Amino acid sequence: MLPTIARTGETIVMIDQRKLPGVELYVSCHTVAEVARAIKTMVIRGAPAIGVAAAYGLALGVRKSRVSGTQKLAAEFYKICELMAATRPTAVNLFWAIDRMKQTFAAGAAAGESVDQIKDRMDAEAGRIHDEDVESCRAIGRHGGALVPDGARILTHCNAGALATAGYGTALGVIRGAVEQGKQVTVLADETRPFLQGARLTAWELVRDGIDTTVITDNMAGALMRQGLVDFVVVGADRIAANGDVANKIGTYTVAVLAREHGIPFYVAAPASTIDLATPDGSRIPIEERNAREVTHVGPTRLAPEGAHVRNPAFDVTPNALVAGIITERGVFRAPYVETLPSAVHGDVSVSR
Amino acid sequence: MLPTIARTGETIVMIDQRKLPGVELYVSCHTVAEVARAIKTMVIRGAPAIGVAAAYGLALGVRKSRVSGTQKLAAEFYKICELMAATRPTAVNLFWAIDRMKQTFAAGAAAGESVDQIKDRMDAEAGRIHDEDVESCRAIGRHGGALVPDGARILTHCNAGALATAGYGTALGVIRGAVEQGKQVTVLADETRPFLQGARLTAWELVRDGIDTTVITDNMAGALMRQGLVDFVVVGADRIAANGDVANKIGTYTVAVLAREHGIPFYVAAPASTIDLATPDGSRIPIEERNAREVTHVGPTRLAPEGAHVRNPAFDVTPNALVAGIITERGVFRAPYVETLPSAVHGDVSVSR
Repeated sequence: MLPTIARTGETIVMIDQRKLPGVELYVSCHTVAEVARAIKTMVIRGAPAIGVAAAYGLALGVRKSRVSGTQKLAAEFYKICELMAATRPTAVNLFWAIDRMKQTFAAGAAAGESVDQIKDRMDAEAGRIHDEDVESCRAIGRHGGALVPDGARILTHCNAGALATAGYGTALGVIRGAVEQGKQVTVLADETRPFLQGARLTAWELVRDGIDTTVITDNMAGALMRQGLVDFVVVGADRIAANGDVANKIGTYTVAVLAREHGIPFYVAAPASTIDLATPDGSRIPIEERNAREVTHVGPTRLAPEGAHVRNPAFDVTPNALVAGIITERGVFRAPYVETLPSAVHGDVSVSR
Repeated sequence: MLPTIARTGETIVMIDQRKLPGVELYVSCHTVAEVARAIKTMVIRGAPAIGVAAAYGLALGVRKSRVSGTQKLAAEFYKICELMAATRPTAVNLFWAIDRMKQTFAAGAAAGESVDQIKDRMDAEAGRIHDEDVESCRAIGRHGGALVPDGARILTHCNAGALATAGYGTALGVIRGAVEQGKQVTVLADETRPFLQGARLTAWELVRDGIDTTVITDNMAGALMRQGLVDFVVVGADRIAANGDVANKIGTYTVAVLAREHGIPFYVAAPASTIDLATPDGSRIPIEERNAREVTHVGPTRLAPEGAHVRNPAFDVTPNALVAGIITERGVFRAPYVETLPSAVHGDVSVSR
C-alpha cells in the first residue's frame, strides 16, 4: 500500500505528489494551516484523499487548540472549517469530510463531553474516515473488477489510484480488483496535462504493482480507440451530481465522447462520499481555475511564450448520458441516476446492478 | 514574415524550431546530409516546410557534387534522394518535392544540359518551390479567410503556420487571411503534446502578429467546445488521401470528433502538394512513431517513471466524414472528396466552392 497520508501523533505525513516520480519526498504537517496549504498546493490531491486530509487536519487543529471550554473550542473549530473549505472548490469529498467532522463535534458537545473528550472523538472520527476510504476502495475494486473483461486493454485518465485515496484507489482500484480476480489486463494511462497525474502518478503506481502500463499523451487516446486498442475506460470523480453528471479531471469529458464514438464502455469509480445529491446537475458544480504556470511551464522549461493568454480549468463535466455506470462501494449504479444514486448514498439495498 | 528557411549561397539557414520560443537560434546546413538530419530531428517541421527544405537540400547536394558528367551526377543525385526520402514517412510534401526535383533533373539531362546547367536548374527549381509555397499559403489565406465568421473564436491544433511552411502558414494562413479581411478573431491554440508545437510555435507566431491567442492543454478543447467557446476549427495536414481522409498531428482526430459533437465546422488547410491521389484512403498512410523521450521528458524534467511503456505516434488520421472542407490555394473543396480533390491537384476550374 502506498503511503499517501498517515498520522503519527500530532503530525500528518504525506508523500509530496508534486515531486513524484522523480523524488519520493514526505511532507510533515504540524498545524491545520499546513494541511490546508498542502491541499491547496496539491502536495496531496484526488477527491477521496483530500477528504481524508481535511478530516485529519481538522482533528489536528482541534487537538492543538489551547482554549478552554467547549464553546470556545467550537468557535475555533468553525473557523478552521472555513479555512479548510477554502482550499479547493470542486471535490465534494472535502465538504463531505468537513460536514462529518462538524457532526462529530456537535455530537460530542451535545453529549456534554469535555474538551479533551471532544479532541479524542475528533481524532477517532478522522481515523474512521481514513479506514472507511480504504475499505470503500477495496469494495469498489471488487464491484468494478467484475465488469472488466479478461484481457481488457483499459484506458484511464488522471490518477484515481492509491495516491488519490487513503489507499488502493477508485479507478485504479477497479483495475487492481480485476487483477486480483485473476484477469489479465493492460493499462493505457493518459499523461493528463497540465499536472501530469497520469504519467507521474498512475504509471508509477501501476509499474510498482507489476501491471503492464503504457503512457500516452492525452491527444493519442482517440487515435488508439479508432485502431481498436481500447476495450474499457474507467476514471475517478471529484463530484457526481444527483443526475449522474460527473466532474472529474480536465479531459475526462473528451475521453467520454471518444469512448461513446467507438462503442467503448465508460465507467466512473468513486466512493459514495463523492456523490452530491444537493447538486442537481453538472452545471452547478464549481470548476476550479488554477494558476497559468501549470500550463506554461514544466519544471524549469517554459512552453508558451509571454503574451499568450492561458486557460487552466482543472476539471470538466461529463454528462450522465456518456456514463455506462458509476461504481461505488455499494455496487454499480446505472441510469436513470437521479433514481438510483440515492441508494448509493443512503445504502438502500435496491442496487441497480 | 518569419524566417523559417532561407538559402544564402551554399548554405541553408533554418530557425531551430526545437528551441522556440525560449531561444531564437539559427541552424546553418552546408551539406545535403545536414539538411536531412535537420528534417529528421525536427529543427524544421511542418509538411510544406519539409518539402521546401528537401528541395533546397537536394539542390545543395547536386551543387556540391564534385563528379563530372551528367550520368555520374544523376547517380549521386538519386542516392541523395533516397537519403532525403528516409527522413520522415508521413508528410507527403517531402516525396512530392523529391519527385519534382527528379523531374527537373531529368528534364535538364534530356535537354543535354551540362553539369553546371543542371546545377543551376536545380537551384532555380528549389527557389520556385519555396516561392510557390508562400504564394499558395497566401491564396489559402484568402479562400479560407472568407469562411471565417467575423468575431470567430478559432481553435487550431499543432502549428500550421509560417514556421510549418515557407511563410504565412496554412491553418494560420486562414486566420491571417481572416484578419486581413478585417475580421475580429481570437485563437485557442492546443498546446499539442508531446512536441508542443501549439504552445511553442503557434502562440509565438500569433502573439508576434498581435492576434489574441490563448494556449490550452489538448484535453481542454472538449470542455471549452461544450461551453460554446469555439466557433470554427482549422488545422493543417501532413497528407490528404484521395478520399479526403487527413493525416495530421496526433490529436487532430480527437479535435474533429469533438467538433462534430458540438456542431462546429472543422476545416483542413493545405497546399495541393499535400494531397496524395496515389493513396486511396487514410488507412494506407504510414504513421511515424517517434522516440519515447518526447513523451517521457520535457526539457530536463522526467514525467513518466522508468518501467512504463510509451507510445508516440506523431500523426493520426481523420476520416473524411468529419471534414467540412479542404482549403487549398485553388479554393475550398468539399465532399465527395474522391470527386473534387483531383481538381485541387490538377488545377481544373470546377472548384466546388
